[in-house]
Amino acid sequence: MSTTVNGPSNNGARPQSWSQSWTHFSVDRRSLGYCRITFDHPPINTITATTVAELAELVGLIEQDSDLNVVVFDSANPDFYLAHYDIENDPGATAALGIGPTGLSAWNDVLIRLARAPIVSIAAIRGRARGAGSEFVLACDLRFASHEHTLLGQWEVGIGIVPAGGPMARLSRLVGRGRALEILLVADDLDGPRAERYGYVNRAVADDRLDGEVEAIAVRLARFDHEAIARTKSYVDLTTLPSNSELTPPVNDFRELFGRPAQQAQWTRLQQLGLNTDSDLERSLGQRLVDSLPDQYP
Amino acid sequence: MSTTVNGPSNNGARPQSWSQSWTHFSVDRRSLGYCRITFDHPPINTITATTVAELAELVGLIEQDSDLNVVVFDSANPDFYLAHYDIENDPGATAALGIGPTGLSAWNDVLIRLARAPIVSIAAIRGRARGAGSEFVLACDLRFASHEHTLLGQWEVGIGIVPAGGPMARLSRLVGRGRALEILLVADDLDGPRAERYGYVNRAVADDRLDGEVEAIAVRLARFDHEAIARTKSYVDLTTLPSNSELTPPVNDFRELFGRPAQQAQWTRLQQLGLNTDSDLERSLGQRLVDSLPDQYP
Amino acid sequence: MSTTVNGPSNNGARPQSWSQSWTHFSVDRRSLGYCRITFDHPPINTITATTVAELAELVGLIEQDSDLNVVVFDSANPDFYLAHYDIENDPGATAALGIGPTGLSAWNDVLIRLARAPIVSIAAIRGRARGAGSEFVLACDLRFASHEHTLLGQWEVGIGIVPAGGPMARLSRLVGRGRALEILLVADDLDGPRAERYGYVNRAVADDRLDGEVEAIAVRLARFDHEAIARTKSYVDLTTLPSNSELTPPVNDFRELFGRPAQQAQWTRLQQLGLNTDSDLERSLGQRLVDSLPDQYP
Repeated sequence: MSTTVNGPSNNGARPQSWSQSWTHFSVDRRSLGYCRITFDHPPINTITATTVAELAELVGLIEQDSDLNVVVFDSANPDFYLAHYDIENDPGATAALGIGPTGLSAWNDVLIRLARAPIVSIAAIRGRARGAGSEFVLACDLRFASHEHTLLGQWEVGIGIVPAGGPMARLSRLVGRGRALEILLVADDLDGPRAERYGYVNRAVADDRLDGEVEAIAVRLARFDHEAIARTKSYVDLTTLPSNSELTPPVNDFRELFGRPAQQAQWTRLQQLGLNTDSDLERSLGQRLVDSLPDQYP
Repeated sequence: MSTTVNGPSNNGARPQSWSQSWTHFSVDRRSLGYCRITFDHPPINTITATTVAELAELVGLIEQDSDLNVVVFDSANPDFYLAHYDIENDPGATAALGIGPTGLSAWNDVLIRLARAPIVSIAAIRGRARGAGSEFVLACDLRFASHEHTLLGQWEVGIGIVPAGGPMARLSRLVGRGRALEILLVADDLDGPRAERYGYVNRAVADDRLDGEVEAIAVRLARFDHEAIARTKSYVDLTTLPSNSELTPPVNDFRELFGRPAQQAQWTRLQQLGLNTDSDLERSLGQRLVDSLPDQYP
Repeated sequence: MSTTVNGPSNNGARPQSWSQSWTHFSVDRRSLGYCRITFDHPPINTITATTVAELAELVGLIEQDSDLNVVVFDSANPDFYLAHYDIENDPGATAALGIGPTGLSAWNDVLIRLARAPIVSIAAIRGRARGAGSEFVLACDLRFASHEHTLLGQWEVGIGIVPAGGPMARLSRLVGRGRALEILLVADDLDGPRAERYGYVNRAVADDRLDGEVEAIAVRLARFDHEAIARTKSYVDLTTLPSNSELTPPVNDFRELFGRPAQQAQWTRLQQLGLNTDSDLERSLGQRLVDSLPDQYP
């Protein structure tokens, strides 16, 4: 079962594009058919406007590369896969990302295009993926998670806002109403085994076998016929993907609710507690977000 | 993680409504944000016209209380959560309940309005919930079941009728076609672990941890922002709830099939075997309903 | 809990039809309400044009028999349930099957009509079911699989084609997008426990209990009221079945992709490796199909 492994200097029609400098992840085009993206944005792999801009460019390359069959997304940090979104105290930077080719704002645009791309995207999850990090893995086609070292969640409702990157649409279809409502409203972390039982991930795999299993699947997919993959996936898309219009309204709710004084005050408390740093807060965010709530509500 | 716990005399804007006398359940408004309803209708928590009328009133209070975030429904009887519907040999009492605000007859009206209410409803299930009892938990947002002491099922097809409170619509979306057809057509009981594997409940929790886990979730939700909960849930509703029109036709099938002489005769045999009492029949209804079948069919 | 067990000579209104000679399966009408079909087409239960023609006739009998409540499909070969489709080097034989009553070509017509038939169809799976064999069990209402001796899969993408018998539509609704994409695109075998975890089957049952459990369910269903089964199932159909029009386009993709020289060459290699015989290739087809891939793709 041999494969052709090419370095970045030998990666098909557009080597100059794929081998450019990326700042929040590295790109390893392992063969014509197989590319691996490794998130690497210390200290905890937050997603910022820069990450979104780079992912938008990457997805553009993926969409147009008919040699490519499979893209694996993993993390250089075993404790954090993608922490969550960080606005870097500059909402303007996110707003400046503008509208993507789908007509939606940048983050949703990236996720929609990744989900519809004619390749197989695989999230190999080790560490924490919350908020936008969870939204990203939900937009991937397959999700494999470390049995021992995974925490997944949508924490937004716990900080008084509505998730804006599609998890109501995607989780509802993936795990059913009851479990989607629990994940979204209780807003706590799920570990690997529970994520598997709920259907949030395809499988929880023993940590020491995760990389090997994902590699075997990717190498296998890289050898398959591109057209068979693309067309078969497109029929699953028809049945399972939300319409673009379903994804738009929550963005307005997010903006409106986040702008309220109480939520701004809670955000300030989260920053004081260690948000966006490799802190105990970030390691146990599902549980510890309650420490940022007003003492007595309302 | 402190919370404000208020007695019934201190429960927000409408204490006089919440603290009225209820006959088939008790109401404990534990805090502004959190209310607990405990079914208590001896001997086996059957649902009657009275239960439906009281639940309709309760749901009306829930819909209008913007302080409230979470309602937990549990049972005072560890063996029976909600046995099933009991027409009390008086179909007129149920018919007299009339049409609710949704335009549907009372039972479906209550379930639809509960599912759409801007709060989180949690069924903490210990004991048996069959027929309308199962329909009730399916209309709740989250379902947690005792691992050791749960039996769930839709027994209607086993007595020759069509379920009338929406389980074809709700189970199909929750557990998928194959498992929904098994639950509905084989019409047998599922225990806690199987209910979890099928996705019928969010989770089966060890009996001695069930109350504590549900309490922790409810206390957490009570502190969250009401608007974030309500809006996020409303987007899940859009994707996961059946239309009202999908729920209407089976009610006519139920009436037509139940009115047949063979089904009336089977109902009489069930009553002779101990239906609506704390009998061996009721404890093992999924298995023992076959004892009410004609000796040889047809 | 007695049942009436009738031999084939005493099987209701149309014994002459049911007891005709079948070549790829045997028919055992165990009672008025219960019929068992046992696939028996040595050496590995491939599906051919003859199988489809006989299944079409059988489904016609099922649709019109108002005494019948349940049909169990099992296999005489413990290693192979239904291997996959075998065109027998004669595509014309399949084409000559023509269009069925639904307006779709024969294989999809059989599957659609079986799924909509007013009875409960049960796949009792022991051995391998891939490609069209998997498509058949997906069209059954309930699926029970041997815990130890089951391999299920859609191998088509691995040989460069698009599955043509509806698994994109049916798996997407049954197991959700992520797991459907894995099954369809990775195109590997799933064993019984994984098939249960994914929801591909209702349950994996210990091999020595499988026959007994299915028998108990069938005997139970045979005694239930036909009308209650048929109407309740029809409401689940409304929510869970794909439209006929969703099933048509992939058939064209299948034909187009299979006609390409590279896929014809791969098919020839598969035949050289032992396709359609009781070979090591067929026993481990999910893994070994890669041996038929071009050495280096593309």
